[in-house]
Amino acid sequence: MNEHISIGTFLVALDLGGTFVFALSGGVTAVKRRLDVFGVLVLAFAVGNAGGITRDVLIGAIPPAALREWRYLAVSVLAGLVTFFWTPLLDRVWSSVLVFDAAGLALFAVVGTQKALAYGLRPGMAALLGMVTGIGGGMVRDVLVTEVPVVLRADLYAVAALAGAAVVSLGHVMHLPSVPVVTAGAILCFGLRLGAMRYGWHLPVARATQPRGSKTPPASHGS
Amino acid sequence: MNEHISIGTFLVALDLGGTFVFALSGGVTAVKRRLDVFGVLVLAFAVGNAGGITRDVLIGAIPPAALREWRYLAVSVLAGLVTFFWTPLLDRVWSSVLVFDAAGLALFAVVGTQKALAYGLRPGMAALLGMVTGIGGGMVRDVLVTEVPVVLRADLYAVAALAGAAVVSLGHVMHLPSVPVVTAGAILCFGLRLGAMRYGWHLPVARATQPRGSKTPPASHGS
Amino acid sequence: MNEHISIGTFLVALDLGGTFVFALSGGVTAVKRRLDVFGVLVLAFAVGNAGGITRDVLIGAIPPAALREWRYLAVSVLAGLVTFFWTPLLDRVWSSVLVFDAAGLALFAVVGTQKALAYGLRPGMAALLGMVTGIGGGMVRDVLVTEVPVVLRADLYAVAALAGAAVVSLGHVMHLPSVPVVTAGAILCFGLRLGAMRYGWHLPVARATQPRGSKTPPASHGS
Repeated sequence: MNEHISIGTFLVALDLGGTFVFALSGGVTAVKRRLDVFGVLVLAFAVGNAGGITRDVLIGAIPPAALREWRYLAVSVLAGLVTFFWTPLLDRVWSSVLVFDAAGLALFAVVGTQKALAYGLRPGMAALLGMVTGIGGGMVRDVLVTEVPVVLRADLYAVAALAGAAVVSLGHVMHLPSVPVVTAGAILCFGLRLGAMRYGWHLPVARATQPRGSKTPPASHGS
Repeated sequence: MNEHISIGTFLVALDLGGTFVFALSGGVTAVKRRLDVFGVLVLAFAVGNAGGITRDVLIGAIPPAALREWRYLAVSVLAGLVTFFWTPLLDRVWSSVLVFDAAGLALFAVVGTQKALAYGLRPGMAALLGMVTGIGGGMVRDVLVTEVPVVLRADLYAVAALAGAAVVSLGHVMHLPSVPVVTAGAILCFGLRLGAMRYGWHLPVARATQPRGSKTPPASHGS
Repeated sequence: MNEHISIGTFLVALDLGGTFVFALSGGVTAVKRRLDVFGVLVLAFAVGNAGGITRDVLIGAIPPAALREWRYLAVSVLAGLVTFFWTPLLDRVWSSVLVFDAAGLALFAVVGTQKALAYGLRPGMAALLGMVTGIGGGMVRDVLVTEVPVVLRADLYAVAALAGAAVVSLGHVMHLPSVPVVTAGAILCFGLRLGAMRYGWHLPVARATQPRGSKTPPASHGS
């Protein structure tokens, strides 16, 4: 029972950590867009909790943890205030949005999978839900500021989330202890994303049938 | 018991009122975008009910009132038809989208808070959910026509919704009668928004670290 | 009972068919946007299942079928791989996104209505939910790539979905056998959409009050 408590605490800590880093990425986006202080807090909360709320709605954990426990709100507000008042710091960590985003992706992917397993979803579907939990935050952030979501632009994004989530599901099937499995999954996802950002790792793209970026049908293919 | 019935009726009336004015704002947007008559009705329904449906999903009131009671549909269709057939009138009320939007924001913020309290959420979280209910409609409207949501652009938007919602939660904690408390909350929210639109009230913005509107990293900070 | 099984199988087949064609439309969009292979799979899954997941959340069928049964995932992945590897074929079926979209619209509209009826919604509301199920997939696809959703641009889109859905609700009220009613509804919706695409059928638009496409208020109406 003691172990159960510590695992629960560990998962809540990871969930709050994911909320914090996603909220940071939302706050940074809001500051760059010149939103006022409350707009920064709202976007921080929305981005920090969109993935978790979606996860909870889909598995039937109603009302979602983000609306039931004050800590998610507190952590989001803290992240929003940090980005608002420490703006000059942002100059030095320009790529911070994407790094925070990668950390949130990793934490939410593993926690989402674990929570879906706890609610009785099968391992494969739990991993899928973990991936959705991970990519939800960045999706909401980018759609709200009318950018194509990072998951559709960036290299090894959803696949990194799925890899981390799959580690958790696999560990569950093999009855391995949760803490090291969840930690390994998060590290794998974060490492894949950072590697993709730094070294340009990417998956293959379909063979081109039209000029890149063109949105009109090609007039002819004769030449 | 008599009082309970009248409070329930009062809240449903406010909810339908919020649906109507948000549906008007959706209809006006659709007419401006040259949608056909049915597109106007769809956008009116979507904008009028997005906030309430989100609220009901998050508190577990399934199926949502908007899909269970025909009045929400009727009110949305009525608003859509009004905007479709009275288009010339729109010239004279150009800012009407934002005024309707402010009225919907106020009504949904207080009704959403009251409903969340009735479903057992704690006062602070109920106010948060009321805010989400209020800002949901305009968010859906703007995302669907690929504009940055008004909540991220306008002055005193989410904060006005939260202020109105907080009045309702506070009144609940202090066991004050519902009708005057809800009315006061709605008036506070609507007044804050209109004041911000008219007099340019706004909250502070973070100190600039880059040229306004720039999306590329600055080449140097030496000068 | 035998008949019940066959009706259930028939509906699941239509649901999977709708998932497949919407997933194809998502995959085609992803390939055109030069997403990598996993991005193609993610967008195929998202577009193929957005309508059904929304429907299941709104009627309280939690967790949604798309996360409970592996076949929805399998069908989506298959559609994604088809679009990824058969890209050259896309040149010859340029309008394929819209045709797949129309097929998905028709299948989801009738299946969504039928499922909502089975969960006890009233016929009118079930038809509305069927329409939402139908238009959800294309909405998610277009919002994610920051285009105005097809439902707000195309002729006879939502109205075709509602017509197909209404046939199913009407057949339910009149106690007609499900299979022919559902088939008729799907054919009606698909036919209306294809006719609108081919022959330019459309509903009336509100009388213009400003130059088409203008987003700024007209300076004067005097001339």
